[in-house]
Amino acid sequence: MNYQVIRNIIGKIMLLVATLMVLPMIVAIIYREPLRNIISFLIPMLIILTIGILFASFKPKNRSILAREGFVIVGLSWIAMSLFGSIPFIISKEIPNFFDAFFEITSGFTTTGSTILSGEKIESLSHSMLFWRSMSHWIGGMGILVFILAFIPESKDGSTVHILRAESTGPSVGRLVSKMQVTSRILYLIYIGLSLIMFLTLLILPDKNMGVFDSLITTFGTAGTGGFSNHGLSIGFYAPCIQYAVAIFMIIFGINFTVYYLIIIGHAKAAFKNEEVIWYLSLIFLATIAIFFNIRNIYSTSEEAFRHALFQTASIISTTGFSTTNYGNWPVLSCSIILFLTLVGSCAGSTAGGLKVSRFAIISKSTFVDIEHMITPRKIRKIRMNFKPIDEAMIQSVKTFLITYFIIIIVCTILISIYNPDIPNLDPLTAISSSLTCISNVGPGLGLVGPAYDFSNYSYFSKMVLSLEMIMGRLELFPILILLYPGTWKKRI
Amino acid sequence: MNYQVIRNIIGKIMLLVATLMVLPMIVAIIYREPLRNIISFLIPMLIILTIGILFASFKPKNRSILAREGFVIVGLSWIAMSLFGSIPFIISKEIPNFFDAFFEITSGFTTTGSTILSGEKIESLSHSMLFWRSMSHWIGGMGILVFILAFIPESKDGSTVHILRAESTGPSVGRLVSKMQVTSRILYLIYIGLSLIMFLTLLILPDKNMGVFDSLITTFGTAGTGGFSNHGLSIGFYAPCIQYAVAIFMIIFGINFTVYYLIIIGHAKAAFKNEEVIWYLSLIFLATIAIFFNIRNIYSTSEEAFRHALFQTASIISTTGFSTTNYGNWPVLSCSIILFLTLVGSCAGSTAGGLKVSRFAIISKSTFVDIEHMITPRKIRKIRMNFKPIDEAMIQSVKTFLITYFIIIIVCTILISIYNPDIPNLDPLTAISSSLTCISNVGPGLGLVGPAYDFSNYSYFSKMVLSLEMIMGRLELFPILILLYPGTWKKRI
Repeated sequence: MNYQVIRNIIGKIMLLVATLMVLPMIVAIIYREPLRNIISFLIPMLIILTIGILFASFKPKNRSILAREGFVIVGLSWIAMSLFGSIPFIISKEIPNFFDAFFEITSGFTTTGSTILSGEKIESLSHSMLFWRSMSHWIGGMGILVFILAFIPESKDGSTVHILRAESTGPSVGRLVSKMQVTSRILYLIYIGLSLIMFLTLLILPDKNMGVFDSLITTFGTAGTGGFSNHGLSIGFYAPCIQYAVAIFMIIFGINFTVYYLIIIGHAKAAFKNEEVIWYLSLIFLATIAIFFNIRNIYSTSEEAFRHALFQTASIISTTGFSTTNYGNWPVLSCSIILFLTLVGSCAGSTAGGLKVSRFAIISKSTFVDIEHMITPRKIRKIRMNFKPIDEAMIQSVKTFLITYFIIIIVCTILISIYNPDIPNLDPLTAISSSLTCISNVGPGLGLVGPAYDFSNYSYFSKMVLSLEMIMGRLELFPILILLYPGTWKKRI
Repeated sequence: MNYQVIRNIIGKIMLLVATLMVLPMIVAIIYREPLRNIISFLIPMLIILTIGILFASFKPKNRSILAREGFVIVGLSWIAMSLFGSIPFIISKEIPNFFDAFFEITSGFTTTGSTILSGEKIESLSHSMLFWRSMSHWIGGMGILVFILAFIPESKDGSTVHILRAESTGPSVGRLVSKMQVTSRILYLIYIGLSLIMFLTLLILPDKNMGVFDSLITTFGTAGTGGFSNHGLSIGFYAPCIQYAVAIFMIIFGINFTVYYLIIIGHAKAAFKNEEVIWYLSLIFLATIAIFFNIRNIYSTSEEAFRHALFQTASIISTTGFSTTNYGNWPVLSCSIILFLTLVGSCAGSTAGGLKVSRFAIISKSTFVDIEHMITPRKIRKIRMNFKPIDEAMIQSVKTFLITYFIIIIVCTILISIYNPDIPNLDPLTAISSSLTCISNVGPGLGLVGPAYDFSNYSYFSKMVLSLEMIMGRLELFPILILLYPGTWKKRI
């Protein structure tokens, strides 16, 4: 294991996190918050800065990174970010408990959006803390290492690709252009551009509640597909036109960013032939229709029923987790669809979580082929994605991923069921949906963690399990599994 | 497709089913039931006999059976058995509705044990109907085609193995001896022997409620790992000593029958080295301990808590579904463990359902190896089962099976959520656990289909979906998937 390069890159990340803490400090100053809030960011900033300078100053002799180092760097960085990111909440005493603060900021960075804050408590948070909480979505959405890679000197053998692979989502990670650094920069430029468009759109729309601050918070939550809002009612707090706009932007941020790159360079036709996007939009269409007919009678007008159906479908499949209504009370068909969408998630290479639509598509196709194979074993069949055959190794790795995903959901469901003295009436649906929503980075679940409730009553142990699950989900399992695997730390590999 | 041999074998099965209907007729005569009950069996018997003679009299020119024919024969036979098996309930008007009767007998043959009869209604059924309902467990447990194979002339190329493969459970089906016919006979002799031992044990134990009839019904339910009881309280109706005895026999019938064969021929040492059995008994041990500590405070004595913990663990992992207490009210940890055991099921080659412990073991091992592979990609690792390496193709087929299993559970959960006017308060946990318990052939679920409730309020459509799911679970998916797949019926394959 190349510990030198691991230390060096983690040092750089610490420097970046320290720099980012300047922004909420500015917010604290603008809103004339008490000095304690500024100090709450200053202290962790100085600590992180010191560690970062120390770590980054040791120049590694050997810059080469293998798959293993890539996973370890990404896994450790995300845990470190969450640990240090929780400090402002604790010092400011706005979330005084470490486990709560860690859960909240992990939920932020991983773009999950599960919260331990009840509706009233959210609204009593100071602006700087709300800003830091939501900004973590935006940072985590595209990935902090992707950002670092945009500025890191690329190693000659191109091995930094392993870091991008370990942090990016989806069954395969391609480069947009041959140079990794340029790829990372293009991705971030698209991300910043789309976020800016959304921010301005929200400001222009006629809703007096949607000021600059609210628009910024909502953009952070949508662009990162996170779901933290500064209101207890989430997006239900705003006018219908805002709800429609947020729904559309959630769908946009759930699409593979390669599509936008192709559109920008003038290959719009190729972009719209992307099979994953077709599956994704079809799923949204079907789910919205099914939910609409299922809930039509609950709401006074068809428009309202349609709006909630579209909004919740977009919110869940994009793994954002905003809500406009308490869908925990919807009939069972809608709840089942929501659980299913929670599992599937969005497109690979977007800011969203879940299994990813491309994996879902590959699995669906391969199941059909497997049945065909049982009927006529001698005929050889190829599975195609985007009109190109995909190789057997890819299909197998998708299957492995899916199974590992299910195993983790089950194991964590059992772990969080063990001890929760503050939820004597915890039921299996709540436990299962907590585990599922955290690994898929959606946010709310069903039952006692539905959109009208929060995660505050879970025990510290359960909160740690769920936090780890969020990071596993965001990093697509293996970086964290490799950290937990004892063999990784043996010298002789 | 060799339609002639398919017709011929289905004909033979019809003859067998007709013959089996003699037994409940004898019960009706013994208990001096009204003439209508005897006619209820006589009419379907004559119909099935006619069809059977017609079908079986066409001797096929070509006896060869490929994998495809094996699946089609088994799939069609099981559907036919369930269709004809429901007629006595309908004619006798004890279960007058077709969909209810079909659900009940399918649940019987597939050894699921989910019922549409509430507690009081079960106790009002006549002896002959109770007998037919429970006997279907015993027939379905070892498999009707395995029974036929014991008497069918074996085709020269040994291709009848495809039928055994299609009906038997587990990732690989071995023959005990080189001749298929002898293998089938040995399996049935072990089955009959163990059932007889259980029947006599129950009679000997001191409980005046356990007479000849109750003992027979309980043996049918246990040996087939079915779970139909003739009492609303299930096994909770009997004394604790009976409860312990049934728990032990449920565990016994969940073990691979090869183990008993090895013991009988004097290879006891080899039998106890069977890795699947070790995993199975370890799971039972761990689950019993965890549930015991979780529920200790609910019951007045530790003995009672232990008895229920052991009984329910054995009942769920063996996919029997008997109950001694309303475990639907247990705390969430116990319910989560029960859901997990529902999924895993018992040993391959037993009468039980579920994923099978061997598949669970292979998946667990392969997930570890996959993580190791990510760390050191060049090292080649072999997964071993029973101290022998298993090949990659087997691992892949286990993964495919698991994923298909999950897909079916999800699809059926959504299907049964669509329309149920009689359960306005249907919740996701009830829907998920209904789908899971039916495919795993356990019987009761959680929520509104928990051990204290029944499946009667589902709509006809939902009942048909669940019935099909039970057959899919019993036949391990592919025979039914192949029937449903349009390509199977094309001429040019």
